[in-house]
Amino acid sequence: MTIHDFGRGPYPARVRIALAELNLQDKVRFVEVDLRTGAHKRPEFLEKNYSGTLPVLELADGTYLAECTAITEYLDHLEGRPRLTGVSARERGMVHMTNKRAEIELLDPISVYFHHATPGLGPHVELYQNPEWGERMRDRALRGARYFDDLLSTRPYVAGETFSMADITVVAAFVFADIVKLTIPLRLGHLHAWHDRMLARPSVQGWRDMGRSTGNCPLEA
Amino acid sequence: MTIHDFGRGPYPARVRIALAELNLQDKVRFVEVDLRTGAHKRPEFLEKNYSGTLPVLELADGTYLAECTAITEYLDHLEGRPRLTGVSARERGMVHMTNKRAEIELLDPISVYFHHATPGLGPHVELYQNPEWGERMRDRALRGARYFDDLLSTRPYVAGETFSMADITVVAAFVFADIVKLTIPLRLGHLHAWHDRMLARPSVQGWRDMGRSTGNCPLEA
Repeated sequence: MTIHDFGRGPYPARVRIALAELNLQDKVRFVEVDLRTGAHKRPEFLEKNYSGTLPVLELADGTYLAECTAITEYLDHLEGRPRLTGVSARERGMVHMTNKRAEIELLDPISVYFHHATPGLGPHVELYQNPEWGERMRDRALRGARYFDDLLSTRPYVAGETFSMADITVVAAFVFADIVKLTIPLRLGHLHAWHDRMLARPSVQGWRDMGRSTGNCPLEA
Repeated sequence: MTIHDFGRGPYPARVRIALAELNLQDKVRFVEVDLRTGAHKRPEFLEKNYSGTLPVLELADGTYLAECTAITEYLDHLEGRPRLTGVSARERGMVHMTNKRAEIELLDPISVYFHHATPGLGPHVELYQNPEWGERMRDRALRGARYFDDLLSTRPYVAGETFSMADITVVAAFVFADIVKLTIPLRLGHLHAWHDRMLARPSVQGWRDMGRSTGNCPLEA
């Protein structure tokens, strides 16, 4: 399998951490798509993923799978019992709800803030910006962080009693918040304590170590 | 199980059609949440679903499941082999990718257009509007319709060889397009031919018949 991504990007992190959780790192090779030059918006990449986002998983038969949740579903069902997306109907419902909520209330709004209310990837990539919308989304993300803090006052992982794909999505939100210098308030103690536990997981630690070995700032040159 | 929804709404349609496909209609009762008065944005509803969207599935133990994809995952795993979300890893990846793409490139942009660039649910519900963003999203949806038309030139269903949750999401986009009077161009012949086949399915037909028996316009009084 081939993963087309940009190693330090927050969405690519979701799939890289999932791969590490599933011990599948050795089954993939990585091809870099340079976000900073807008390579993900060029026609040859849009043939792989209409939406022009990273990462994309290329299967041996040439099929392209985009969207982190879809790629994670694929990887999680390669070998028997799922480990990241739930087993029972109830678990699957909870994981998918919480994962989607982590996207729409936290990670995606930070992304919109980055692309619309900051210089983002620069004027050669950010051809349209709506700063007012970007700032609304920053505020939405900060409310979302409070929601997840509340949630984590009653459970060890965001979707319940076990680690899941939804935790990875919130970890990616922290990655993106760091890139855009959006501070998750320290008073959100449950959320930060959970994040400290996440940082101690080998999958997340390995992803961070990769960053240390290849440079500092994830999206900048 | 209880479903909190607004029967004629496009997102509620996704779960109602899934229920019919799975022959689970008799297992649920419906409680109406009146979108037109903003009941889905009031604190008592936000306790059920932080994001303030419909539908929400309430389980017998009092758990609330929101987000159509999550609810469909739950329902599809209640009884053995999934029928709407794929079985193999590859099928699951394709269904989830295509479903997400139907959301972000078609259904959700129509919703944003409705809420931001039209009167939407009225000034007592639409407390903030960003018309420029809404119009961008209308254009995105129209591009998305062309994408799905292309896709359907090579396959019978949007995610491949079999009907899935992703088809339901595109059906819901047609429902919403109808509400906002957004014309899906007739020249998109593959898409319209597919839609005609969808309208002939008992699950979709049943949903439409319900509309005929309860009134005309889905979201208006």
